[in-house]
Amino acid sequence: MLSALDLATKIEAGELTPADTVELCIDAIKRREPEVHAFAALDLDRTRTHAHAAGAKLAALPLRGLPVGFKDIFDTADFPTSYGSSIYSGHRPPADASLVAMTRRAGGIVMGKTVSTEMAFLDPAGTRNPLNLAHTPGGSSSGSAAAVAAGMLPIAVGTQTGGSVIRPAAFCGVVGFKPSFRLLPMVGVKCFSWSLDTAGLFAASVSDVAFAAEAITTRDLRIDDQAVKPPVIGLMRTHFWPQASVDMQRAVEQAALAAETAGAKVHELTLPPLLEEAHAIHATLQNYEAARALAYEYDNQRDRLPRLLRALLDEAAGITAEAYDDARRISKRARHAFNELMADVDVLLTPSAPGAAPAGLGSTGEATFNRLWTLIGAPCVNVPGLADPSGLPLGVQIVGRFGRDRAALAASRFLERALADA
Amino acid sequence: MLSALDLATKIEAGELTPADTVELCIDAIKRREPEVHAFAALDLDRTRTHAHAAGAKLAALPLRGLPVGFKDIFDTADFPTSYGSSIYSGHRPPADASLVAMTRRAGGIVMGKTVSTEMAFLDPAGTRNPLNLAHTPGGSSSGSAAAVAAGMLPIAVGTQTGGSVIRPAAFCGVVGFKPSFRLLPMVGVKCFSWSLDTAGLFAASVSDVAFAAEAITTRDLRIDDQAVKPPVIGLMRTHFWPQASVDMQRAVEQAALAAETAGAKVHELTLPPLLEEAHAIHATLQNYEAARALAYEYDNQRDRLPRLLRALLDEAAGITAEAYDDARRISKRARHAFNELMADVDVLLTPSAPGAAPAGLGSTGEATFNRLWTLIGAPCVNVPGLADPSGLPLGVQIVGRFGRDRAALAASRFLERALADA
Repeated sequence: MLSALDLATKIEAGELTPADTVELCIDAIKRREPEVHAFAALDLDRTRTHAHAAGAKLAALPLRGLPVGFKDIFDTADFPTSYGSSIYSGHRPPADASLVAMTRRAGGIVMGKTVSTEMAFLDPAGTRNPLNLAHTPGGSSSGSAAAVAAGMLPIAVGTQTGGSVIRPAAFCGVVGFKPSFRLLPMVGVKCFSWSLDTAGLFAASVSDVAFAAEAITTRDLRIDDQAVKPPVIGLMRTHFWPQASVDMQRAVEQAALAAETAGAKVHELTLPPLLEEAHAIHATLQNYEAARALAYEYDNQRDRLPRLLRALLDEAAGITAEAYDDARRISKRARHAFNELMADVDVLLTPSAPGAAPAGLGSTGEATFNRLWTLIGAPCVNVPGLADPSGLPLGVQIVGRFGRDRAALAASRFLERALADA
Repeated sequence: MLSALDLATKIEAGELTPADTVELCIDAIKRREPEVHAFAALDLDRTRTHAHAAGAKLAALPLRGLPVGFKDIFDTADFPTSYGSSIYSGHRPPADASLVAMTRRAGGIVMGKTVSTEMAFLDPAGTRNPLNLAHTPGGSSSGSAAAVAAGMLPIAVGTQTGGSVIRPAAFCGVVGFKPSFRLLPMVGVKCFSWSLDTAGLFAASVSDVAFAAEAITTRDLRIDDQAVKPPVIGLMRTHFWPQASVDMQRAVEQAALAAETAGAKVHELTLPPLLEEAHAIHATLQNYEAARALAYEYDNQRDRLPRLLRALLDEAAGITAEAYDDARRISKRARHAFNELMADVDVLLTPSAPGAAPAGLGSTGEATFNRLWTLIGAPCVNVPGLADPSGLPLGVQIVGRFGRDRAALAASRFLERALADA
């Protein structure tokens, strides 16, 4: 994989140019893309020309001219944007999404659009897991996770409404960072659920993803340049622990042990009933909003929607305003309960997914271990480093307090090191 | 003005057809539009054909085929959508905004796009106040308020980030309803500030606006069909009361007296310090987000942005993440303080604007009396019925508890009657 921070450091030192990093990506794309299918749109010649023309200027900016890929639900003025759907095939938005514009402003080169499942829901797209082509890369940010895992991009951007950043990151063995709700603006991103949709970043390591997040947001988020204090970790099996594979259960326990060995304090925590309830109403919140967010497509192009999404919208039409309002109240109370839960720990440790990437491309996997944290709005990081007996990655998840994204990244970096040393 | 509820009742009874109501609008548009300039896009022939072809089907749906106008920051697939800006001149979105699709789903006919100031900010557009063409109609939902006031539409949709629904409604003498934050979806609406932008409705009377809100949202919001219990009203002068004109101060006191005479209880309330603080940080929240929401336009088309917006974005670049995070924390605490303030009253009564519509078209007026309630997310209604010595309307504002939109509408209906009877 390409380390964003390593590349940026070399560019800053004059040992590498933005054009060189673009060539590294192009080499990997030529090698891996024909089998991985991570990209929805690419223009290698234009990107190369741009990197040569603007390289010196970009090298002086925070992102140092690094190539970035955006999930194809982010509007881009210079790439087609189809939201993964034939309904929008060839659509060219008149403006960049906010996060795209902010990335360019920070000195990033938008290298291409990465494959999203249709409207970022569960119907699988054609991307394959670069670590084993017979397995799903996860979804809905399939292309972003796969492009980073295959070394085709140092940084990619995705979104999560249930588990669409953390899950594909776990399946592809890369770091996924879903920040606190609305840390990354959602303006110009195809909406599925306005209370839940959250942009996130993919990179090779925790330091890489934190570097990218700091450069794009101009917030103090880097954690590579200092000693990390051992965190207090709450081991959170959750009431759906039995849905995790034996390998995943072992991986989480192994991660807890490695963290403890490295000096962290680890407590067992149980999920309060209010958070169990919040987990259960995620679908009500998401689907009521999806029925409105996608009202135009449903009313005008229902037959062109994919099977799972169509079924969801058919069913969502029956959700009452009362049920939705109840769900909103529960999620508000759950945020308070979460703050109380986190009073004595810095972060939680919990599975990133039920197991390793399932075989086949017929499903993108389950968001069971993600959707509660998305609903709470808490920062989540997939930390890779463990694997199942076949060698496929088993990601574990660090969940931080709302707005404490830096602390969540620091704890993730601590765990990443602990796993490497174990 | 055209009463949405009267027209709908007549259509339901078979006394009128959707095509007839379209003709009423077309007549008024032919008479008034050349001097008022409320519309950014119209297609009278197509609308007429559609009303004839689909009339019978639409008459059976909740909105009964009534014509609706949308502020030109709402995406529409069948009308150009320029966000009031030359940057987007002729832009045709690939889909309807959620609220547009929901309006069509409810049986509304989208009659045209109404004039928005550029990107819904303060730089005035060309719309004139139908009650006195030498005065501003207010902004940024200038066209929506003016179109209803001139009898050209029974229902129009706008948005408010500071005071862009309540202020133009007050200046034009129509009812404006800014519901609780996110009661009306914002998907497909050009974003200025994602924490503040709120869609709202314009109509001739409180019953009309409540009818439209119920039909579009399928929530229980109508208040025309029942006796209204006299509300407990908090008279809220606020600490910026001296910025209200003497006429406006008298109007609010007159409204309080009329409500009391009609049986309401009226208490004087003062604004808690935390809400004063929240009023002060509205700009921080709004401008930090605007700098990101409009990043593409600022970075690529700065010279084509109008003067006030350009100046705002220039300045907004200096707002730190820390200042923004502080503003978010203050607004969260202010919401709790507001709930406590409202413990003993049903609604607040406060000015809708500093006075009547200012003379001239060089300014759309001030949002002083609106922006706090937008930030709180509380439902607000402009109640017309009073006037200054020159005959220009002086609107007073009812502010309800978050999520209690029906109670806010009921209290507004009560005040509307009390003013009519006084």
